[in-house]
Amino acid sequence: MITVGVYGATGYTGLESIKLLRRHPEVELKFATSETYAGQTLNQVYPIPWDIPLVSSADAPLDAVDAVFCCLPHAASMPTVLKARKAGVRVIDLSADFRLSDPTSYQQWYSAPHSAPHLLPEATYGLTELNRAAIKDTALLANPGCYPTSILLALYPLLAKNLLSPQSAIIADSKSGVSGAGRKPSLKTHFAEANENLSPYNIGQKHRHLAEIEQSLQTFDGPADKIIFSPHLVPVTRGMLSTIYVELAQDLSPAQAQALFEDTYATEALLRILPAGELASFAHTQNTNGCAISVTAVNPRQLILCSSIDNLGKGAAGQAVQNFNVMFGLEETTALL
Amino acid sequence: MITVGVYGATGYTGLESIKLLRRHPEVELKFATSETYAGQTLNQVYPIPWDIPLVSSADAPLDAVDAVFCCLPHAASMPTVLKARKAGVRVIDLSADFRLSDPTSYQQWYSAPHSAPHLLPEATYGLTELNRAAIKDTALLANPGCYPTSILLALYPLLAKNLLSPQSAIIADSKSGVSGAGRKPSLKTHFAEANENLSPYNIGQKHRHLAEIEQSLQTFDGPADKIIFSPHLVPVTRGMLSTIYVELAQDLSPAQAQALFEDTYATEALLRILPAGELASFAHTQNTNGCAISVTAVNPRQLILCSSIDNLGKGAAGQAVQNFNVMFGLEETTALL
Amino acid sequence: MITVGVYGATGYTGLESIKLLRRHPEVELKFATSETYAGQTLNQVYPIPWDIPLVSSADAPLDAVDAVFCCLPHAASMPTVLKARKAGVRVIDLSADFRLSDPTSYQQWYSAPHSAPHLLPEATYGLTELNRAAIKDTALLANPGCYPTSILLALYPLLAKNLLSPQSAIIADSKSGVSGAGRKPSLKTHFAEANENLSPYNIGQKHRHLAEIEQSLQTFDGPADKIIFSPHLVPVTRGMLSTIYVELAQDLSPAQAQALFEDTYATEALLRILPAGELASFAHTQNTNGCAISVTAVNPRQLILCSSIDNLGKGAAGQAVQNFNVMFGLEETTALL
Amino acid sequence: MITVGVYGATGYTGLESIKLLRRHPEVELKFATSETYAGQTLNQVYPIPWDIPLVSSADAPLDAVDAVFCCLPHAASMPTVLKARKAGVRVIDLSADFRLSDPTSYQQWYSAPHSAPHLLPEATYGLTELNRAAIKDTALLANPGCYPTSILLALYPLLAKNLLSPQSAIIADSKSGVSGAGRKPSLKTHFAEANENLSPYNIGQKHRHLAEIEQSLQTFDGPADKIIFSPHLVPVTRGMLSTIYVELAQDLSPAQAQALFEDTYATEALLRILPAGELASFAHTQNTNGCAISVTAVNPRQLILCSSIDNLGKGAAGQAVQNFNVMFGLEETTALL
Repeated sequence: MITVGVYGATGYTGLESIKLLRRHPEVELKFATSETYAGQTLNQVYPIPWDIPLVSSADAPLDAVDAVFCCLPHAASMPTVLKARKAGVRVIDLSADFRLSDPTSYQQWYSAPHSAPHLLPEATYGLTELNRAAIKDTALLANPGCYPTSILLALYPLLAKNLLSPQSAIIADSKSGVSGAGRKPSLKTHFAEANENLSPYNIGQKHRHLAEIEQSLQTFDGPADKIIFSPHLVPVTRGMLSTIYVELAQDLSPAQAQALFEDTYATEALLRILPAGELASFAHTQNTNGCAISVTAVNPRQLILCSSIDNLGKGAAGQAVQNFNVMFGLEETTALL
Repeated sequence: MITVGVYGATGYTGLESIKLLRRHPEVELKFATSETYAGQTLNQVYPIPWDIPLVSSADAPLDAVDAVFCCLPHAASMPTVLKARKAGVRVIDLSADFRLSDPTSYQQWYSAPHSAPHLLPEATYGLTELNRAAIKDTALLANPGCYPTSILLALYPLLAKNLLSPQSAIIADSKSGVSGAGRKPSLKTHFAEANENLSPYNIGQKHRHLAEIEQSLQTFDGPADKIIFSPHLVPVTRGMLSTIYVELAQDLSPAQAQALFEDTYATEALLRILPAGELASFAHTQNTNGCAISVTAVNPRQLILCSSIDNLGKGAAGQAVQNFNVMFGLEETTALL
Repeated sequence: MITVGVYGATGYTGLESIKLLRRHPEVELKFATSETYAGQTLNQVYPIPWDIPLVSSADAPLDAVDAVFCCLPHAASMPTVLKARKAGVRVIDLSADFRLSDPTSYQQWYSAPHSAPHLLPEATYGLTELNRAAIKDTALLANPGCYPTSILLALYPLLAKNLLSPQSAIIADSKSGVSGAGRKPSLKTHFAEANENLSPYNIGQKHRHLAEIEQSLQTFDGPADKIIFSPHLVPVTRGMLSTIYVELAQDLSPAQAQALFEDTYATEALLRILPAGELASFAHTQNTNGCAISVTAVNPRQLILCSSIDNLGKGAAGQAVQNFNVMFGLEETTALL
Repeated sequence: MITVGVYGATGYTGLESIKLLRRHPEVELKFATSETYAGQTLNQVYPIPWDIPLVSSADAPLDAVDAVFCCLPHAASMPTVLKARKAGVRVIDLSADFRLSDPTSYQQWYSAPHSAPHLLPEATYGLTELNRAAIKDTALLANPGCYPTSILLALYPLLAKNLLSPQSAIIADSKSGVSGAGRKPSLKTHFAEANENLSPYNIGQKHRHLAEIEQSLQTFDGPADKIIFSPHLVPVTRGMLSTIYVELAQDLSPAQAQALFEDTYATEALLRILPAGELASFAHTQNTNGCAISVTAVNPRQLILCSSIDNLGKGAAGQAVQNFNVMFGLEETTALL
């Protein structure tokens, strides 16, 4: 059995991680932390049956675990990751703190200096399908953001073949369920404000996830400066769809485009290219850990990719457990189907 | 023109009051207050077109108005009402502060002493259909709570004829939209917690509105100690339905029961008894200022009353304007249809 | 491995049964039927990844299975169950067709004669927690309705101790998610009609599930003629809560009431009595196969029971699999946690 | 008083038209038709208080009215419009039947020949803000589709100044509430399928509204062949947002872009350009008859326009009444604020 701890167990990604880890046959959960609810049990915080005790971070027995899932907010994550790494524990970090390899970029987007820049070189970006070899050996896994996951998985088949027109905008119009904003109450996520509403926010080139998308586009020699990313909040608890408009560097027939995507991901268990004519929707992946992508050819040079994930599944805890499975040499889909 | 001010303009009942007053042909809005947003305009707080300036309560020109709508939270309302009454301004108070005639009862339910008990004798409880004569002459109108409005309007035809069994429980199982909880963010009203959920709260004899219901039952010599009231939060922005189970003191046929309700409210413009067989639902009154009631006979001694209002309409601002119309001798339905 | 077939695989209870059976380690799914979609695969009907072939009922290999789940509508279920029983296959029937032991009662409530009355004596009512011994040996399991499940599980501790006042009404005010109405489009379940609405229907003593509840009350010598049952449709996909008001035959303190419920169900894995003060809500059981019940004492003679299940989980497919597990001598919670 | 009839009164656009016309001080409603519900009253079809009688189309007294609102589905509308025009009655047609001036295009997109092509030359496309002069004198008003309204109002300031790059795609990613799909039940609009879902449909260049958008782009000498239009269904009853990505033919600073939009629409009462930094959402226009547009500069050559309307308000009945007001020389906003 692999022993595991979860930091930040009472946020939505923490809870979802625990749900998955509980039914993981190779995992023994050793601790779950919460500063706010330390001393209580998880079923005093959520309407669930499991009386998992919550301890403060300071009381978490780091020496008793092989790995930790760090489900803390950005900035709060860094010191905890540092402590875990010092203790020789492998880390899956679900925050944004170790996703950007350049600490200057981190400071620019997150308005504060990175407090553990020396750890950045050992951090591995965990977009599982694109980076398995590196993930396998890493001790510090930076789990991707939900929006970047939905967008990059859709773009990758084109990036890999250098098929994106270098001078054209890549437009990602993304729609997210409200749980993506976390559990902290706010006016934006107040029921009577969010319900029956749909609202764009930080559109264009302003959302923090843009940095993460650009970095990955650079990794694959794509047109990193051409991405336009517009998130929208929709009145749904869980779900995410990115509708992505791309221009191609060369002509592709609808069949060629479809085949390219199917071939690229032919062996993936958690990513499905939908049959031609079927469009990806929230329902395709809601409450799952998978990704569903549809490919629509507008003309030989223009495609619309619809990429669906559950923001808490493949967009957070699901991908975290997938990466954990890769890191520990387990069957990649364990606890995820 | 009647000059009017609104205290607490940026809460949901405040905003709804302003929406109604804006289209009221006899009203001139002189001020709208907000402590949080003073100096801004209403369309900087809500996605609406009206650039109504917001002033702090201290800067509101009380001497320029004939009446004020006080849309502040309970406890906060008392000093403002006091100030307005001292200035000779007629008050429609939407808070709970002047609904209970007994200050001891207020202290018991609201956990703090009443700060203006000398004003209580002049306060008139504004369940319009049941109390028009007194409302007409009042200078201090205590606008009823939403739950009491839905429940008491349904019970009144039986109360008036002394038809409720004195020893049987009156069970009011009420369902409310989330806007009833106000605009202050909380975990309970956080989208990802309230959406796809339905949750009872303060059931039995614990909710503060119980005091208000009991007081009115006493007024009509009803079995005040028999009321059981169970509110439920439902994932809808606006709406309220009370399903009320009563036992009768004597047999009534379905037709007699239906006729009793129709006769009692035959001349009401804002209250509709549904035809036999049609059950009241949220949709019957949503975004309106009316009430819809259905009467279902289970057997000659048991009725089920379904009473529907919009919690912000007849349950708050709509009834407040209705009372305002009565107080100022205007057509009662002005701005309300 | 136990071989299983599912009739009516493309309705909501059929799909949910397949979801559960797919991850059941002791089950091999041999066929799934659909008259409408025969020849297609399940993932052409739903946005899911599983390409399970759909065959017409006539083509289903009954001789290849140990058991069938019959997820057809009432009336349509009878001939299929008959065929399966003739073939010696054990049946879990999720329809209403074998729940009422009296064919006259069936005819009265379902407006058509029962076409297989000779099978009724061998049918076992599958409220698992209350009827395990009989379920274990049955060849024809009548899986309970969702409303009766939520109501009867809550009443049983009082029934078992003969604690219900024989002359007082039992009032069950129930709220259900819309998936309970099935997958056939109708105006009532049309999004723009059901959304933001909450509507009572068939209230009092009119809903078909009343017969099932009364029959079980009789089984336990309870006041079967006293049940009043009022279902409400709420704008949620999955979930059910029954708020039940009962009068007791003798005084119980809050602690005694709580203890009675906890003791009755002390060994149940899928039914949880919530701690005193915590009220059951949809969220307590949504997307699970369990039941959560809260006990609120209004006074020594009156209790409010809130009973939550997922209408497709414990209210349908979850309980069906639970019963299947009991019938085949498996761990009762297999595939259900 | 202007006398008016409404054909198709029980669909969503018919009901909304009646709601607006009821409070229109210059209108007398003479008839409302429904083939399905003829002989009943409107409040037997909807949970509303108005007992407006419904007659079959054949029984509608065309000679008693000055104008008709035709709220029938496409194809069904043509013969009714023809009959009304023959009777000399002015027509506001809310269907798609008279929006495309070329009957060949109609046949291509609507899969059937146009049955009244000789009326097309007299039909006026009713995008009010862009076509007032022609609307004033028309006898046959073709009320625009909801999607084209939201998109064309946003593009017009750029079209008018010839500022759209002629070789770049115009990408309109649109999101619509479910009432836009009408009142006829279907699987797509079934609550349990649409709720908690978000789904694209007919994306790229396939949706029928594309023809209407292209035609208007041609009218203004815009790049009609460059429009890519992707509608999405969102789990909201009313609302529409189009997020539109355009490339400019010349550089514009953010302030210049903002000023261009503000200047173009400076005198409009029902269209609001939001202040820089505020993004249009469903909430900006829900339950209103207005349009709200935000202008976001990504860089000097790329803008994102967010355009919000209520699909039943400015997207249908609201604009129909606005056009009616223009046609009859009334204050344009009568009954619409």
